[in-house]
Amino acid sequence: MSTSFDTYFREHREQHLNQLKDLLRYPSISTLPEHKADVADCAQYIASMAEQIGFENVQVMPTAGHPVVYADYLHAPNQPTVLVYGHYDVQPVDPLSLWETPPFEPDIRDGKIYARGSSDDKGQVFMHLKAFEALFKTTGTLPINVKLLFEGEEEIGSLHLPEFVEAHQDQLKADILVISDTPMLGPDQPSVCYGLRGLAALQVDVKGPKADLHSGIYGGAVQNPLHALVQILASLHDQEGRVAVPGFYDDVRALRDEERSEFATLGQSESALAQELGVKDLFGEPGFTALERTWVRPTLELNGVYGGFEGEGTKTIIPSEAHAKITCRLVPDQDPEQIQRAIANHIRAHTPPGAEVDVTLLDRGRPYVTPFDHPAIALASKAYEQAYGVPAAFIRMGGSIPIVETFQALLQMPAVLMGFALNTENFHSPNEHFSLENFDKGLRTLCYYWTGLPGTLK
Amino acid sequence: MSTSFDTYFREHREQHLNQLKDLLRYPSISTLPEHKADVADCAQYIASMAEQIGFENVQVMPTAGHPVVYADYLHAPNQPTVLVYGHYDVQPVDPLSLWETPPFEPDIRDGKIYARGSSDDKGQVFMHLKAFEALFKTTGTLPINVKLLFEGEEEIGSLHLPEFVEAHQDQLKADILVISDTPMLGPDQPSVCYGLRGLAALQVDVKGPKADLHSGIYGGAVQNPLHALVQILASLHDQEGRVAVPGFYDDVRALRDEERSEFATLGQSESALAQELGVKDLFGEPGFTALERTWVRPTLELNGVYGGFEGEGTKTIIPSEAHAKITCRLVPDQDPEQIQRAIANHIRAHTPPGAEVDVTLLDRGRPYVTPFDHPAIALASKAYEQAYGVPAAFIRMGGSIPIVETFQALLQMPAVLMGFALNTENFHSPNEHFSLENFDKGLRTLCYYWTGLPGTLK
Repeated sequence: MSTSFDTYFREHREQHLNQLKDLLRYPSISTLPEHKADVADCAQYIASMAEQIGFENVQVMPTAGHPVVYADYLHAPNQPTVLVYGHYDVQPVDPLSLWETPPFEPDIRDGKIYARGSSDDKGQVFMHLKAFEALFKTTGTLPINVKLLFEGEEEIGSLHLPEFVEAHQDQLKADILVISDTPMLGPDQPSVCYGLRGLAALQVDVKGPKADLHSGIYGGAVQNPLHALVQILASLHDQEGRVAVPGFYDDVRALRDEERSEFATLGQSESALAQELGVKDLFGEPGFTALERTWVRPTLELNGVYGGFEGEGTKTIIPSEAHAKITCRLVPDQDPEQIQRAIANHIRAHTPPGAEVDVTLLDRGRPYVTPFDHPAIALASKAYEQAYGVPAAFIRMGGSIPIVETFQALLQMPAVLMGFALNTENFHSPNEHFSLENFDKGLRTLCYYWTGLPGTLK
Repeated sequence: MSTSFDTYFREHREQHLNQLKDLLRYPSISTLPEHKADVADCAQYIASMAEQIGFENVQVMPTAGHPVVYADYLHAPNQPTVLVYGHYDVQPVDPLSLWETPPFEPDIRDGKIYARGSSDDKGQVFMHLKAFEALFKTTGTLPINVKLLFEGEEEIGSLHLPEFVEAHQDQLKADILVISDTPMLGPDQPSVCYGLRGLAALQVDVKGPKADLHSGIYGGAVQNPLHALVQILASLHDQEGRVAVPGFYDDVRALRDEERSEFATLGQSESALAQELGVKDLFGEPGFTALERTWVRPTLELNGVYGGFEGEGTKTIIPSEAHAKITCRLVPDQDPEQIQRAIANHIRAHTPPGAEVDVTLLDRGRPYVTPFDHPAIALASKAYEQAYGVPAAFIRMGGSIPIVETFQALLQMPAVLMGFALNTENFHSPNEHFSLENFDKGLRTLCYYWTGLPGTLK
């Protein structure tokens, strides 16, 4: 069945891809202060795109951090109102040397568009804008009431969005929340996500002598901050990969038998996954499959450790400082702040003599899980089926969208997590990319979803 | 008592300091390939200085690495021949941000000259050249036969000097070896060193997934290379600071009671040392004083650990790789290669599942100790006394001059280690400097030494 939006997408494909490239050229890296202006410029670009498409009340709204883009179109009386959330900020790009083409010079090859943010999440933010554009252009209006909310701090834990949402509860009120920031299970297996892990981040800073010391002259006299740090960090896991912080697993909701059986039917091959990731064997908490470990079990990962000399050859010093960056992925019913405090206490208890240690509590986000029998969620699976030929699977995810829990707590609306990226698309790594096949099918999925919603929800 | 060289040094002080600044401007960092040409230029500068002073057979001799500068003046028949060794290469300068003035723009303030290499060892190489210049200019000749040997690879373990010395044994033959690359015990306590620690360096590289992974999607599925690395590194020491590698202490020569008593008379204050280094407490192998731990006990130090994200904020990745740089300081009778192998075996035995580990054996140098009753060593103490007013103490050192052991083994001559730097002068750290008081007194000490040698050794 060909539809009018089908034709519209075909005829404007080249133009859309060029506009997408323009959006991907902004180096909107939210964690790096030197990119603050780029993040702001990217917000402006999205706001003007929303305005051109036909949205109203378009605003770039300041927060204590990066701005939020808001826009709405509320001209479908007696029809449902949806809040569409996405983020236009991106992860850092290091190591830059591993990118085949520069991260902010989008390049299309082999049916994929390569750039930082192409899949996570600027590409999908763009798809939402273009799906609405197609409906505007082909029907003159939208079948539902729409509010857009695109933030610039998702990659740093949505630092200021909770207070923003709290301050604008009336403005943001809607019947459902739709987010496209979760990957599909596979290229031909669209998926609707009903559970996300939460996040708890910490930084550990070990301070030793006031300057780097000559290891010949002083080696043996003082505690080496790196020695202290590796002892602290090694104490965080046991030999088999369990987190060894007391209380870490206390509030973890047990995996239900039905869930375990459902996961088993998804057919994830552990050997295929090992091959895809380039490791000889998978590894992790005993007693769980890799899928279970990444979806329903919490983790504690070292994201970075650094101190002392990193150049070629040798440098015979005792460094003055050593550092580690840690993030945990949390599952219901773990409390992020409680977990942060448990880890900080564990670190203090395991600090060897002769070193001073500071633990800083950084980002946190609550884990999320929702029943998937809501009609808006069932409709998402159907919309995927119309575009892809197969219904969506209902899955959980290992990643975190901290703000989902905030929306849930403040605005009490169900979240529909319908994404179009693939796990193999290197979201936080060099050579991030996005499949143009999913770009094309995703645009259609969204249009099917919006046009189906009035009959379903009302 | 004023001497002719005294007058010479006074009259030429300004000129000498300007020439020293010129020498210190060469960024002759031997470990960084991008500074190869700077190291070569620095060798040329030293060679032309030797030529201008009056040395003969001046040569910049290539090695498989950085070149060696050789020169001699052999016109004192029936008098002893000395080989003067020094190095014109320097340590890297990072972290650059901590330097108060740029490392290669020498700056004189508070009676000190600040620059990388000012004390270790270009400043002292320069003093040898200027001491000989003073003797040439005031007496028209040298009282002894002199061979100069200045290398460009000391900071990377004198990689190619052993084969160079072996290939040029006849050319380098001498009665004694004189080196100024060891610090004095304190500002008013000149010292002659009779023992040095050896060196054994290794690099550990842990390889995990083929690219950095999103910690939400894959956290829990694979071994994190940083987790593997910190477990390996934490296993290298016990909780109290002893090295935990099996066999590490097997060949360590026990500390003699007389030596322990002698060290005790040197009056090192541990609380003063802690304050100088900016730590609350010193720390190290139980059962030994800090002086003993740094002079006669071996160590294993992490000089650098790195992997993953180092920027501000958080980046939720599992890094693909993790690395560590290790150097050991060794004492008689430990064998550097045997120690490297013991550590490599220990690392392999402590590698957790799911990670691949490479251990690379890098620089090594044997520890050195010599009896100090040789007349050339006694004369050094007397020469210090003439310039400083106090005789030199006989001390051991925690640092390494790997080539001392090579000279000993190949050329069988006693080494006189008479240096003029101070431990507080930040040799391998930001803001390296050299006291101009020791520069002035050191020039005189060397002239007293050379003029005293004919009567003493002959």
